[in-house]
Amino acid sequence: MTFRATVLTLYPDMFPGPLGMALAGRALQNGTWSLQALNIRDFAEDRHRTVDDTPAGGGAGMVMRADILAKAIDHVSDDRPRLLMSPRGKPLTQHRVRELAAGPGAVLVCGRFEGVDQRVIESRGLEEVSIGDYILSGGEAAAHVVLDAVVRLLPGVMGNALSGDEESFENNLLEHPHYTRPPEWEGQPIPAVLLSGDHGKICAWRRAEAERLTALRRPDLFSRYQPFVGGKKAKPET
Amino acid sequence: MTFRATVLTLYPDMFPGPLGMALAGRALQNGTWSLQALNIRDFAEDRHRTVDDTPAGGGAGMVMRADILAKAIDHVSDDRPRLLMSPRGKPLTQHRVRELAAGPGAVLVCGRFEGVDQRVIESRGLEEVSIGDYILSGGEAAAHVVLDAVVRLLPGVMGNALSGDEESFENNLLEHPHYTRPPEWEGQPIPAVLLSGDHGKICAWRRAEAERLTALRRPDLFSRYQPFVGGKKAKPET
Repeated sequence: MTFRATVLTLYPDMFPGPLGMALAGRALQNGTWSLQALNIRDFAEDRHRTVDDTPAGGGAGMVMRADILAKAIDHVSDDRPRLLMSPRGKPLTQHRVRELAAGPGAVLVCGRFEGVDQRVIESRGLEEVSIGDYILSGGEAAAHVVLDAVVRLLPGVMGNALSGDEESFENNLLEHPHYTRPPEWEGQPIPAVLLSGDHGKICAWRRAEAERLTALRRPDLFSRYQPFVGGKKAKPET
Repeated sequence: MTFRATVLTLYPDMFPGPLGMALAGRALQNGTWSLQALNIRDFAEDRHRTVDDTPAGGGAGMVMRADILAKAIDHVSDDRPRLLMSPRGKPLTQHRVRELAAGPGAVLVCGRFEGVDQRVIESRGLEEVSIGDYILSGGEAAAHVVLDAVVRLLPGVMGNALSGDEESFENNLLEHPHYTRPPEWEGQPIPAVLLSGDHGKICAWRRAEAERLTALRRPDLFSRYQPFVGGKKAKPET
């Protein structure tokens, strides 16, 4: 089953862009997912193809009009989740990425300007999604991120293996440090335990390093971390 | 002064990509910033141009070699910050974006595979930066996000005005809802206060909506929010 992505944007030429290359690009070419980018401006009704207007109540910037955007959304509407890329949204998590990847696809609405008329967000049930606490020039870079994260989870794209990064996140841990050949480089050896061949010790070292790093860098994640108990993996938080 | 971005990647063709269009693209064309994308593989030494090897201690995936990546980094090295895009990194904030935009540029290292040999991270002082708690297929989409966020802050790119989004984030608030014409759409009116012309009331309504939304969606941000006190803006947290 093909994961169907539709992006509503003022810059359709930004897609597929990097999503047409590497892992995601191969998956796009072999039909694991599809991507359609539509220009919101094509749904405007005047000869200047206006999509925005000044904010009610005054203030800087322009606001995307509810009526025009609603027409674009209604044009592609089906049972897929409708996401609005927005710094006001719920922070994107690996859990939500996994849910999206298990579904039929997604419609991703990319705002530009100061924001989008609140009435279209509510009437069309847009799920506001934030990829992080910083401001972008528009939703397009965020849509690329969401799609990259989702596509790598689609069947066949990565092979069967969960990446180590992913296993970590599922358990609220950052990943342990990695090393590879050469065994000594610029006077720095690979930690001896990793070359010991003792799988139990290696596993314990990696776990301890991951815990140390998470406690140091991400106390917010670490507070939700539940270590393995009696050989049974604690249920990851969602 | 030109902000100089250098990206080290296995997929240099992903750049500028969307960064060559719209706001960032115009700024690139007029020399407000420059972008160089170098292929890490060009610094490999064997005829297969190998950049990775199996992880010391075993496990899934491949690890990017310290020696090859160090050669690439040393090739472009100067006084610019060196960022490694990584889910293990410190979460990117608007504060860090603003710092980067005020500097001479940045070197952005994009990992692929399972990770990067820890020794090159330490010896070359790479600053690990995470754009959010999800896993990408590589660092490239994250580098696009960092550069998009930075470039819009460079002098002349956005004009002089801070966006409302940004003013909000500086104060640990999400933005209030926006509305624009038409005044009634699908039976939904614009909130009357916004059409009242009473600037004080509009301002109070927007502040109250922003507070309500932040408390609801982002208790983590809201706990750091300090309201205006006696007409004086509280110093934003960093």
